[in-house]
Amino acid sequence: MSDTVNRLTRAFERFPGIGPRQAKRFVYHLLATSKENRDVLSELISSLSQDVQQCKTCYRFDSINGNICRYCASNDRDDKLLMLVEKDQDITAIERANYYRGRYFVLGGVLTLSGKGAIREKELLHIIETRLANGLEEIILALGATSEGEYTADHLREVLAKYRPKVRITMLGRGLSTGSELEYSDAKTLSSAFANRKES
Amino acid sequence: MSDTVNRLTRAFERFPGIGPRQAKRFVYHLLATSKENRDVLSELISSLSQDVQQCKTCYRFDSINGNICRYCASNDRDDKLLMLVEKDQDITAIERANYYRGRYFVLGGVLTLSGKGAIREKELLHIIETRLANGLEEIILALGATSEGEYTADHLREVLAKYRPKVRITMLGRGLSTGSELEYSDAKTLSSAFANRKES
Amino acid sequence: MSDTVNRLTRAFERFPGIGPRQAKRFVYHLLATSKENRDVLSELISSLSQDVQQCKTCYRFDSINGNICRYCASNDRDDKLLMLVEKDQDITAIERANYYRGRYFVLGGVLTLSGKGAIREKELLHIIETRLANGLEEIILALGATSEGEYTADHLREVLAKYRPKVRITMLGRGLSTGSELEYSDAKTLSSAFANRKES
Amino acid sequence: MSDTVNRLTRAFERFPGIGPRQAKRFVYHLLATSKENRDVLSELISSLSQDVQQCKTCYRFDSINGNICRYCASNDRDDKLLMLVEKDQDITAIERANYYRGRYFVLGGVLTLSGKGAIREKELLHIIETRLANGLEEIILALGATSEGEYTADHLREVLAKYRPKVRITMLGRGLSTGSELEYSDAKTLSSAFANRKES
Repeated sequence: MSDTVNRLTRAFERFPGIGPRQAKRFVYHLLATSKENRDVLSELISSLSQDVQQCKTCYRFDSINGNICRYCASNDRDDKLLMLVEKDQDITAIERANYYRGRYFVLGGVLTLSGKGAIREKELLHIIETRLANGLEEIILALGATSEGEYTADHLREVLAKYRPKVRITMLGRGLSTGSELEYSDAKTLSSAFANRKES
Repeated sequence: MSDTVNRLTRAFERFPGIGPRQAKRFVYHLLATSKENRDVLSELISSLSQDVQQCKTCYRFDSINGNICRYCASNDRDDKLLMLVEKDQDITAIERANYYRGRYFVLGGVLTLSGKGAIREKELLHIIETRLANGLEEIILALGATSEGEYTADHLREVLAKYRPKVRITMLGRGLSTGSELEYSDAKTLSSAFANRKES
Repeated sequence: MSDTVNRLTRAFERFPGIGPRQAKRFVYHLLATSKENRDVLSELISSLSQDVQQCKTCYRFDSINGNICRYCASNDRDDKLLMLVEKDQDITAIERANYYRGRYFVLGGVLTLSGKGAIREKELLHIIETRLANGLEEIILALGATSEGEYTADHLREVLAKYRPKVRITMLGRGLSTGSELEYSDAKTLSSAFANRKES
Repeated sequence: MSDTVNRLTRAFERFPGIGPRQAKRFVYHLLATSKENRDVLSELISSLSQDVQQCKTCYRFDSINGNICRYCASNDRDDKLLMLVEKDQDITAIERANYYRGRYFVLGGVLTLSGKGAIREKELLHIIETRLANGLEEIILALGATSEGEYTADHLREVLAKYRPKVRITMLGRGLSTGSELEYSDAKTLSSAFANRKES
């Protein structure tokens, strides 16, 4: 096959969750579509960095006027709360729940027991200093209930210990998530679910 | 094949989650094992009802002296709490968590929107009357976080409304269950996880 | 839980493809069913060896009069063909295809590269001697198209080499099996499918 | 989010096998990568139609000098054989097998019982006329062993009937494909595997 096809296949292989076979299917999909469609896609990809930038405060990607994103710029959000998440998509999920109205910070990853992974620790500490001046009272470690999420939370708890007791460090509550059945739930989930039981 | 093989295959097909093909594999497994092994299995199955009986109070199966099971007979368990579960295996999971020390009642099923399913409602109301005399203060609806679990809880809440406010009706807490990632969690799980967040 | 429940759970865990959790579900299924149903199942299991026996010639299990099964006893089957299969269920699948009318021999397993597994080699050689006297012309190695199946076929080819050229040793044909798509087929399947192409 | 992100997400949703969630992950993957990487990808996509074109004879995509692809241009390939395949990737699989040395024609799809799907029938008939002048002797219907593949083959057999007996119409052989086990194989696969058995 042509060099362009091979190079494009390799580029798609770097997409998350895509293997060589599906990467090749993507190329054939593009070949079978119209030149106009390909040009639109090409243009969208190259213009991505003009329309979308990384916020200098929370590090999420957004269409930005100046240096900071809409959530960081908004006056409607509660400066007392700062939620730390692994990645942009986590913010999308939380905003969909339409419940949280505080600020965010994107860690950009998680730490693993094997020493892999990295988070924006220096940037986080810098932001917290600024947020403290604006009345920060609580930092929410909003990490997944996975071993990596817990390991990252453990590390953050140490790093952020110096801000206590001025700032509370909290974690998202454990319990039955939608779809959970008791029979298949582990001890930690069930004991938290019992401890967090509520009038119904 | 012989009639015995066909009848035994059909009996295994009635086992939960077993189709015709695996049922047949079970029969060949038994044929390939020793006669001694088969006789032991046969004996265990036929003696099941001598060694294990259904508790007259909570309706779980257990090795029973008299009419009631070990949990119902125990003096160490808290009479103020009564947990309603769908099935025996749910109790096994909760006991594994080693956290809850109250009483149980096995509903024997869940109710579905389509009108299928049944629960031991009459028996439940009868038991509650007895438990009330023993200081019952809280009934915990420990159902799965599924549409059927929620539908069953809705129904029980209506049926049990007459015991309020003397008895509190509670539900297991919602939140991140072990393994949950924020990105893939729904709005209800995330808003509960936020509401149930705790000092960490 | 009672000793009977635990022992029965462990017995079901030895069933092919069944883990501890499903084994426990089986026990609860039996507890929830009627005593009559349990007694029927118990009786079927214990009477299995009276109604079903292993054929002394082909080693399959069948309801047997005397020493040999219906296929071995039948005069309608072609003595020139002997098909070697791994297990009883393979014969069921081949008979369902309603195409083959020769004799069978159940190897009782496959050999693996790691040295595990065993087949009825001595019994096979003994049977072949008898079959030779009855006009045997072809032995069909009807093993799966898996690495274990091929390794077993390689071994059998060596062991049976001494019967050539009097007896032909053949293998089932390779090609597209039902459901195969070209894109996902390997080189061996496709080259065989091309070599075995037929007027259509 | 910005309009560019939404439009790019929708473009990725049109990729084969990609849903809204993974499309969004692709966009975040591109945002997290360097501007240089994005520009390379953008350039590769827009230059695809310069480097790769559809062959005017077999309709596969290839880097092309003039109007026809390397396989159609090659003098080493057998003009007596023409293999009809659904899509380009099928040719890749067959070439990997390194067995077939004839010509190809890409149908561009399959026909379905529900009347969906389309193939390049007019173009096929046109090509066959040309190939007949070059000594065509056999057309191989190389379709998947699926209901759609068989339905398409049935249709092609009718359309191509007028070229018989000058041209043979053949189909790829059925049998055990790599990984097949007898127990789970259907009657058609097993009877073909038996009919296609070979000296071993």
